[in-house]
Amino acid sequence: MQKSQKIAIVGSGLVGSLLAIYLKKEGHTVHVYDRSPDIRTIQFSGRSINLAMSNRGWKALDGAGVGDKVRHIAIAMEKRAIHVGNQLNFQHYGLQGECIYSISRGVLNRKMIDLAEEAGAEFFFEQKIWDVNLTDATLQMGETERGEWTDVKYDMVFGADGAFSRIRHRMQRQSMFNYSQDFLNTGYKELHIPANADGSYKLDKNSLHIWPRGKYMLIALPNLDGSFTCTLFMPFEGENSFASLDNRPKVEAFFAENLPDTIDVIPDLAEDFFKNPTSTLVTMKCFPWTYSDKVALIGDAAHAIVPFYGQGMNAGFEDITILYEMMQKYGNDWKTIFSEYEKSRKPDADAIAELSYRNFMEMGTKTADEKFLLQKKIEKWFASKHPEKWMPLYDRVTFSTRPYSEALAIGDFQESIMQEVLKMNNIETNWQTEEVENKIIQLLNSK
Amino acid sequence: MQKSQKIAIVGSGLVGSLLAIYLKKEGHTVHVYDRSPDIRTIQFSGRSINLAMSNRGWKALDGAGVGDKVRHIAIAMEKRAIHVGNQLNFQHYGLQGECIYSISRGVLNRKMIDLAEEAGAEFFFEQKIWDVNLTDATLQMGETERGEWTDVKYDMVFGADGAFSRIRHRMQRQSMFNYSQDFLNTGYKELHIPANADGSYKLDKNSLHIWPRGKYMLIALPNLDGSFTCTLFMPFEGENSFASLDNRPKVEAFFAENLPDTIDVIPDLAEDFFKNPTSTLVTMKCFPWTYSDKVALIGDAAHAIVPFYGQGMNAGFEDITILYEMMQKYGNDWKTIFSEYEKSRKPDADAIAELSYRNFMEMGTKTADEKFLLQKKIEKWFASKHPEKWMPLYDRVTFSTRPYSEALAIGDFQESIMQEVLKMNNIETNWQTEEVENKIIQLLNSK
Repeated sequence: MQKSQKIAIVGSGLVGSLLAIYLKKEGHTVHVYDRSPDIRTIQFSGRSINLAMSNRGWKALDGAGVGDKVRHIAIAMEKRAIHVGNQLNFQHYGLQGECIYSISRGVLNRKMIDLAEEAGAEFFFEQKIWDVNLTDATLQMGETERGEWTDVKYDMVFGADGAFSRIRHRMQRQSMFNYSQDFLNTGYKELHIPANADGSYKLDKNSLHIWPRGKYMLIALPNLDGSFTCTLFMPFEGENSFASLDNRPKVEAFFAENLPDTIDVIPDLAEDFFKNPTSTLVTMKCFPWTYSDKVALIGDAAHAIVPFYGQGMNAGFEDITILYEMMQKYGNDWKTIFSEYEKSRKPDADAIAELSYRNFMEMGTKTADEKFLLQKKIEKWFASKHPEKWMPLYDRVTFSTRPYSEALAIGDFQESIMQEVLKMNNIETNWQTEEVENKIIQLLNSK
Repeated sequence: MQKSQKIAIVGSGLVGSLLAIYLKKEGHTVHVYDRSPDIRTIQFSGRSINLAMSNRGWKALDGAGVGDKVRHIAIAMEKRAIHVGNQLNFQHYGLQGECIYSISRGVLNRKMIDLAEEAGAEFFFEQKIWDVNLTDATLQMGETERGEWTDVKYDMVFGADGAFSRIRHRMQRQSMFNYSQDFLNTGYKELHIPANADGSYKLDKNSLHIWPRGKYMLIALPNLDGSFTCTLFMPFEGENSFASLDNRPKVEAFFAENLPDTIDVIPDLAEDFFKNPTSTLVTMKCFPWTYSDKVALIGDAAHAIVPFYGQGMNAGFEDITILYEMMQKYGNDWKTIFSEYEKSRKPDADAIAELSYRNFMEMGTKTADEKFLLQKKIEKWFASKHPEKWMPLYDRVTFSTRPYSEALAIGDFQESIMQEVLKMNNIETNWQTEEVENKIIQLLNSK
């Protein structure tokens, strides 16, 4: 147990709420601020992407003792269901039957706030934080940016206020603060597959459904009530873009032609398409993440990534795991806790940003590439024969809790091996041979 | 002549002042705002790096008809003077005797404001712009950020307010605005070599003096009064850093040991070292640079680069050349002028940022590298034999006005050729042979 501190968390999202639970466990006073109304009192906004909780997320929840309370609102997805034309192919996830878990962002957020309140954290909604004094952890809040502000002083402040963090905004105006924000030319829109009248699922419940189409892609993740939350990723401009689908007949014709098996299951397609906003996708990197022992960024406020590896929330939760490790190690020395936290975590945040961006690029170029599909088959075959020698990159990211930066480095090494293997004579037909197996083993040992 | 517009320029630096002259030429009403006092009324700050004006800068000045008024405050530098130990080596610039020109930033800035006022621009100093309304080009100014503000509406606003631009700050808060700022771990400090008692120069007047030392470097550029402005570039932390030189005896011992020939010419070394600030070096990139036909960024506000290619001001002035070309081409269609300006100019701004950063990296790793020096010798030899076939990258950047992006691309092509040449047998001794000459010609033709 640490010396009790008076701590403000800005942002009542998933990371802010879980952090509140961890800090209460350590005996601190915890106030959580959010500029929005209490999410438990309002309807969801129609702009979320369902979450895919995987091992890193569960580890952080279990570390706070709340994993089991979340498990009963999660749906196991044991496989990808790939929709091509009217065909459906299943690809199971981990070699050992591991699953990822679909959770509605809104449902989980409500649950996390409940759990944080039970743990003793106090929440203050519709409180707008406009600025922070970094040197003495004082929040400045008020109705409007140009109006009267009230100062509230804490021992320390966490910025868990997302990709467009106000707390980071202040840090960014210091000298020597490195920062980048890069928007994709692809955006996303939420769509909806309702449950059948009897509450059953219209598609296979235990799958993450994907309609890969190169430059654009539709996915669907199951909800508890029999429905699916769908997300359409698509370029803003050009052919087959949000700009080109500018009226109902065009949207309906586009789906009928390119996503024919969705027509029967998305009844309110055109209505949802024009009602729900088109949202942007950004990669945000910055450093440092902390200021002395006073202010620290965490989650999307420190590292926002694109969602194509399903790791955004998992990475944010893992920040807390790492921060908590440092708290255990350095006791009341918050200066060291903060500096070791950012030093340890930054390379891993950069690695998952890179991996997520690469998955976006692959979505556009590789889903229909024969060589790429062959490579994945060979990897899977070799990994099932030699699980101790080869863990596929996806598994390493999703089902291990080893650092993301290690996954990226080993993934690049494995990629270089596979490029050699793909050059072998007649690899298209001979890939399941001892020759290929030995070649991989030799390459693994040689480098 | 265009339809007259009421235009605000934020920033009375070099780019803001020159832009004012161009806009007055076209008959617009031009108001220039600066948060600082009039530089003509104050002492210089001791934190500048002397400018090296080269062809792109002169072209922009001549285009406004003010080149000759600036030439008489410029000093031609026909060569580098490399100080190694107590030795001095001269390296002439361009093959055709081209020079770069040393100008004090402060002296030039005062001159440019004078010229802009003569052209009819109105300057408003000590006026703090805090925000801008992008949709109607309204500036918001006042004494303090949190105090009362006054709105002043224009037809359009130019942000020429430097690397930490307030105008860009507003644009950055829009969605889909890409942005990055990256600080080097190396900073800089101004030092001073005074004139002799008789007003003569202590070092060769027509040289850019360089003391290359790997991780750190001293340079000196001549001023009109017989003095030199020196800049020490050095890491903030570690061995031989600003942090390690933390008292007068250490500074004096360091210079005596590593920069022995400066001891006699920098009399106030230790005093200047602790009086003058240590400044940071940042690369800033962003996009878009414009908002509709209302707001445009220019110069460092659009693209701040590190100073290791001597192109910062030249690139900013060339922005104006390109903008003016678009004004000539598209008349009163400012929406097109702005969008063609940013589209044309962005790749070149990225290219000079990259080239400047590479020069910084080379300073640390290559100045003592035998292969690198041999490569430069071979290039120079070949270029002097075949000037129509080979313009060295430095010349292309500094003495041509072809796009920076073209210089970067051709430079990379030339680099790939030189890497082949350096692999030739006994190249160290045989570099001045017909065999090498033919090899380069063959490689130039083959790709």
